Amino acid sequence: MPIVAVGSLAFDTIRTPYGQVERELGGSCAYFSLAASYFTEVRVIGVVGDDFLPEHEQVLRARGIRTEGVERAPGKTFHWGGEYLQNLNEAKTNFTELNVFETFQPKIPAAFRSTEFLFLGNIQPQLQVEVRRQMQATRLVAGDTMNYWINNAPQELAEALAVMDLLLINDTEAKMLGKETNLPRAAQRVLAMGPQALVIKHGEYGATIFFREGAFGVGRHPFRAPALPIDAVKDPTGAGDSFAGGFLGYIASQGELDREVLKRAMFYGGVMGSFAVEDFGTRRLQRLTRDEIDERFQIFRELTHLE
Amino acid sequence: MPIVAVGSLAFDTIRTPYGQVERELGGSCAYFSLAASYFTEVRVIGVVGDDFLPEHEQVLRARGIRTEGVERAPGKTFHWGGEYLQNLNEAKTNFTELNVFETFQPKIPAAFRSTEFLFLGNIQPQLQVEVRRQMQATRLVAGDTMNYWINNAPQELAEALAVMDLLLINDTEAKMLGKETNLPRAAQRVLAMGPQALVIKHGEYGATIFFREGAFGVGRHPFRAPALPIDAVKDPTGAGDSFAGGFLGYIASQGELDREVLKRAMFYGGVMGSFAVEDFGTRRLQRLTRDEIDERFQIFRELTHLE
Repeated sequence: MPIVAVGSLAFDTIRTPYGQVERELGGSCAYFSLAASYFTEVRVIGVVGDDFLPEHEQVLRARGIRTEGVERAPGKTFHWGGEYLQNLNEAKTNFTELNVFETFQPKIPAAFRSTEFLFLGNIQPQLQVEVRRQMQATRLVAGDTMNYWINNAPQELAEALAVMDLLLINDTEAKMLGKETNLPRAAQRVLAMGPQALVIKHGEYGATIFFREGAFGVGRHPFRAPALPIDAVKDPTGAGDSFAGGFLGYIASQGELDREVLKRAMFYGGVMGSFAVEDFGTRRLQRLTRDEIDERFQIFRELTHLE
Repeated sequence: MPIVAVGSLAFDTIRTPYGQVERELGGSCAYFSLAASYFTEVRVIGVVGDDFLPEHEQVLRARGIRTEGVERAPGKTFHWGGEYLQNLNEAKTNFTELNVFETFQPKIPAAFRSTEFLFLGNIQPQLQVEVRRQMQATRLVAGDTMNYWINNAPQELAEALAVMDLLLINDTEAKMLGKETNLPRAAQRVLAMGPQALVIKHGEYGATIFFREGAFGVGRHPFRAPALPIDAVKDPTGAGDSFAGGFLGYIASQGELDREVLKRAMFYGGVMGSFAVEDFGTRRLQRLTRDEIDERFQIFRELTHLE
């Protein structure tokens, strides 16, 4: 089943201890859709400027990603600049030029409105709600958010959470949103805000999915997928969006939404995140094979598997 | 097979957001031996003062722990005071009264010297080497250390690492000891210092075991055990020592030291750590049953198990 994904398309200028790149294709929607493209068709909704060239679009199209929903606006594409210090865990933003993204008004092409899977990338919560409103017959709505909206737009965020079946955020965001430092308790509080399930990403330690009682009929016990200890991290940008792409891409590729599918989806999320960080920007995600992905899935499985 | 365990026996005065206790039985050796006692016989080597009463010793003896190696010295027992703030991840030490522990000279009773499993708790590295020297025919030596020795006694610590088959430390200690912020690379550097295997404890995210090429004939791929997301953490003191007790206790209880045993040991370590934090001090570890332990083992297994 295809996925409609809305979010940012951007150029990233990144420096890490392992090198630097300028104006590399990035943005949450680029990472998400490239990661998900190995599992299903992705229909991107975003906005770019005059400087977004056919060669940039071709990166997405080469992976079968549908770009009819990418609006071209006069002006420049969103440009983010940041760097990572020695521990690679925290990005230091050097500049954020929103450019055409600042006035982004997502419009879903009519042909995409009855797509059953929807990913609401990290954009203004009001826009997430608006996108959801434009869709019909959506079976699963997954979404992301960030500290900025948690702190500065709590009311709008509450409305966005109410339209999401599934939220994917990291530890810090979960604790902030749940106003609670104990992670499982924070998870319960976030689930009370709307989503049926909550995926909390722990970076190099993997991710945990928590469920509301009765959610998807999968039982209320959490499930945790490990992350591979990687000694070759070059650039952590986009790891979380790539996780989301692998996670939702795998779910959309399956007919059923049961506990086993969700568990495997957690592993595929970790797998795609682990590939993303091996090279700068989306480079590694552009040149994978499904065999490589399934091989790493087995390695992840072995990492914690007891006979 | 029995284990000889050397380390601190102490009284702990602890405050957490969930309550406080005064002069509660603690110390690395108390947590380790209580946790391991559900799997095998533990022979404790430590020192206590006049204030260590029969009722304190009885806590250990009630679990079948052998206390003939506990020396009674004139003076007071080691007393630690600390508190945990809201996030429970970091202890703030209020006082450390080493008392009789300051001049501790571990002596292994003759009857214990040919015990096959040895745990060198976190004491001065020179004493760890000295204890190892007193033992004969030891099959597996596992040890712990801490930031203080990494920073202040690197040469002595290097000698201690050289006599350990297996080292258990946390993320921060591994990065500090390996002088490297990437965890898998730090692990390789620590392994080059002597141990065949290195267990890195990630707190609420579980633990990973890394191996030297050819170690124990178990292959070089790491193995990761999850930790249960616990919403009822009352007191994190001793979680790491309890992990070590469950880990080494399970290994010692098995005839073979193969990959599957080590994997299960990682899970049992996590299980014992998860019990330890549910109540203050060693209270929860004093009143467990093997059934409760195996039930939680299954929950840990389910937490990450794919069909």
